[in-house]
Amino acid sequence: MPMVTVKPGQKINLSKINPNDTGKIKNKNEAKTLLAQNIERMAELQNILYAQNHHALLIVLQAMDAGGKDGTIRSIMSGVNPQGVQVTSFKKPTEEELSHDFLWRIHRAVPARGMIGIFNRSHYEDVLVVRVHNLVPEAVWQQRYEHINNFERLLVDSRVTVLKFYLHISKDEQKERFLARLEQPHKLWKFNPGDLAERALWDDYMAAFETAFEKCSPAVAPWHIVPSNKKWYRNLVISQKIVETLEGLKLEYPAPYEGLDKIVID
Amino acid sequence: MPMVTVKPGQKINLSKINPNDTGKIKNKNEAKTLLAQNIERMAELQNILYAQNHHALLIVLQAMDAGGKDGTIRSIMSGVNPQGVQVTSFKKPTEEELSHDFLWRIHRAVPARGMIGIFNRSHYEDVLVVRVHNLVPEAVWQQRYEHINNFERLLVDSRVTVLKFYLHISKDEQKERFLARLEQPHKLWKFNPGDLAERALWDDYMAAFETAFEKCSPAVAPWHIVPSNKKWYRNLVISQKIVETLEGLKLEYPAPYEGLDKIVID
Repeated sequence: MPMVTVKPGQKINLSKINPNDTGKIKNKNEAKTLLAQNIERMAELQNILYAQNHHALLIVLQAMDAGGKDGTIRSIMSGVNPQGVQVTSFKKPTEEELSHDFLWRIHRAVPARGMIGIFNRSHYEDVLVVRVHNLVPEAVWQQRYEHINNFERLLVDSRVTVLKFYLHISKDEQKERFLARLEQPHKLWKFNPGDLAERALWDDYMAAFETAFEKCSPAVAPWHIVPSNKKWYRNLVISQKIVETLEGLKLEYPAPYEGLDKIVID
Repeated sequence: MPMVTVKPGQKINLSKINPNDTGKIKNKNEAKTLLAQNIERMAELQNILYAQNHHALLIVLQAMDAGGKDGTIRSIMSGVNPQGVQVTSFKKPTEEELSHDFLWRIHRAVPARGMIGIFNRSHYEDVLVVRVHNLVPEAVWQQRYEHINNFERLLVDSRVTVLKFYLHISKDEQKERFLARLEQPHKLWKFNPGDLAERALWDDYMAAFETAFEKCSPAVAPWHIVPSNKKWYRNLVISQKIVETLEGLKLEYPAPYEGLDKIVID
């Protein structure tokens, strides 16, 4: 798979990674068939994850606006029992959230054992939008990479597997998607004129992402850069990685209670 | 549909409601086809609910152990975008929760606008298990019916539609399901020997449910008693009611921003 998994300290140049890449997959139909298989397998694995109540999985999604975060969640996770899935969308922090450290609101949303948690945006915003707009002094955001690594290490050591996906689209593709939102009544609500101001800062965002990937890709929780201009390919790659990760946990239904054979039901 | 929707103050005798009822539905296959249609429609309606961000839907599920709460959620809600669904399973209250009023933990879990919230157990436990086991004095739980009505009224007045379903199974059916849990390795984890002690109090629970239905079925948020010995029928009835309820909200995608026609994307 041409998904790029960042190595610890690896320098990334996003302009060198082709967002149109679709690897060995020839067309949408082939991808859809494979995706359907992955979704079915994910539903099975999620059921054991929940029953075993021993591991948790945290999926972090980051992307530029219109990069496909919402669509990824809908396409991949519809089909999984919502009782075992918890999606948290991180918006502009509230006053209360801002009166705490930047990881406070994140920590509260970490999935419990047995659960799959999905972060639609995440603590990485605090080294992305915050950096691009100088919302805190550089000395503050520079420290955050280490705080993030320490925090994610805590999670991993506590049996929370951390899967981080960057949905890599081109600036042209973003334009196409913005236009689609303007043209299609049922997509119009997603268009936010403020997104255009962010689009103008595209290069600054790319630089901020590249730094985050370089600094926050320890071997236990690397960033995965997913070519995402083609939604069907993006969905396939991410679902595949989730399935492989869950399979790697060697999940098992929990052992029976002691004395089960003596039970009589009146 | 033979689902019983309780009228305000209506006395209910659960032993007179047939848990095997399947109405006009002849068989499982017919029910499955209709369920698939309902799920598809629910996914569409949920998308508009989320986009409009104006209404919320709260689904409360109560039942005896093995009554099918988990199965209902998995069967009906897998297929809906988990970003718009939030399932809360209320367990035995924590020390912190017990140091607050009984609605405190419930209120925190109420779905935000645009969301579907599902309560797997709920504030009704505080007039069910709490009453059956005398966990608080009668004078305390007797007051709770009114507190519950006032609380739900607050929600309804705040555009949270409240749908309450009791999954009605027979005591024999519970036995069958407990046995199935004991016999099938992938269901074994759901068996809790403590459930047998609750089963012995079956009649007390039925009486507690009947009081709750009678006292907490205002016209704006009545209880629905769903014949649930047949899972396929239960799923159909509940999905049907959810679809009808969402359709009744006359959901619409939000209106476009002003000045959209002047937007240029560079």
